[in-house]
Amino acid sequence: MATATTARPPRGRGRPRDEAIDERVLAATLALLAEEGYAATTMTAVARRAGVGTPALYRRWSSRTELVENAVFPGFPDLVVEPTGDLRADVQRYVDAYCAVFAAPAARAAMPGLISDYQTDPGVHRRIGDRVAGSRVRDAFAAMLTHDLTHDCADPAGLVDPAEPSFDPDDALDVLIGSVMQHSFVRPFTGRAAGNAYITDAVVRAVSP
Amino acid sequence: MATATTARPPRGRGRPRDEAIDERVLAATLALLAEEGYAATTMTAVARRAGVGTPALYRRWSSRTELVENAVFPGFPDLVVEPTGDLRADVQRYVDAYCAVFAAPAARAAMPGLISDYQTDPGVHRRIGDRVAGSRVRDAFAAMLTHDLTHDCADPAGLVDPAEPSFDPDDALDVLIGSVMQHSFVRPFTGRAAGNAYITDAVVRAVSP
Repeated sequence: MATATTARPPRGRGRPRDEAIDERVLAATLALLAEEGYAATTMTAVARRAGVGTPALYRRWSSRTELVENAVFPGFPDLVVEPTGDLRADVQRYVDAYCAVFAAPAARAAMPGLISDYQTDPGVHRRIGDRVAGSRVRDAFAAMLTHDLTHDCADPAGLVDPAEPSFDPDDALDVLIGSVMQHSFVRPFTGRAAGNAYITDAVVRAVSP
Repeated sequence: MATATTARPPRGRGRPRDEAIDERVLAATLALLAEEGYAATTMTAVARRAGVGTPALYRRWSSRTELVENAVFPGFPDLVVEPTGDLRADVQRYVDAYCAVFAAPAARAAMPGLISDYQTDPGVHRRIGDRVAGSRVRDAFAAMLTHDLTHDCADPAGLVDPAEPSFDPDDALDVLIGSVMQHSFVRPFTGRAAGNAYITDAVVRAVSP
């Protein structure tokens, strides 16, 4: 009605566009996770904090788990690195990016709850592979490995046949992510050194011919 | 009173020894975790199920977290393997042992809750290092690596100076445990292959000179 009586396009106090709702809901989810924890981050609580109706949430996310995944793992744009020919530097960038993801307060609060949800309701949560390390990230990681292993100018002996990688890239990414999880969620309380370069070392050694 | 009026030593219906209480409490904890989940496995619920008083629990375990850790990670006797000189087989035994630990229903139910507790109350839970991979396990793993890397008769070229290991054994065990966590708790829902040999491959490649 309001927009119909004015010639101006809706902005400011007009009806928010969908993307604006998305952003507000995701921001409210992150804030609730960090401040109140996973259990308190319900669809109702997020809707109230974002100032939108619960139906608006369910139209966009089918469950609390999906909403939290979307907020905490927004797609890793920084992870999709161009291969540089420097395998160690490229792997280290992935390690640092995953460490940064798991270091965020919202992610720290969400991860145990998400993992718990996967165990109790595996049918709903096959998407984890697409969220934490979706096919786009997996494809980029595999392409980076193949490029760097076949174009390592500093070590011609390192050239391998890309058709026969010495280590499956998906397996290597699982080792990398698992190691970062242990490093982020358990190791801080064991008194061992904080540096993460050992993860890069292990992955580089694993994939090198 | 009953024991004072009879000459027989207390057994059967006599007052249970401490070890018997320990065993009953730990068994009740595992059963509750598997059947009801972490949240429902409270000190009160465990005491009721084990048929002991709550004070008896608190005399032995200072918190629910400590009790659950003790029940789920009882010390890994099977993990303390004698080094055989076959590095790959020895590492695979550790990988299989950790996979078995994380595959137990009680452990699957407990791990997310434990990890969550560590994040919210890190001061209390520095013990995780001693539970999941205590100093005894870490010492045995390091000794295995050192032995196998310096006694690999099949590959004399693999001999290394034990004073200068090419990869820190504690780091290698963190990579191994983290990879098994990812393999056990996330990978089953991604559709990727179930075999765990890639973890052994990665660790062997990481520690090999």
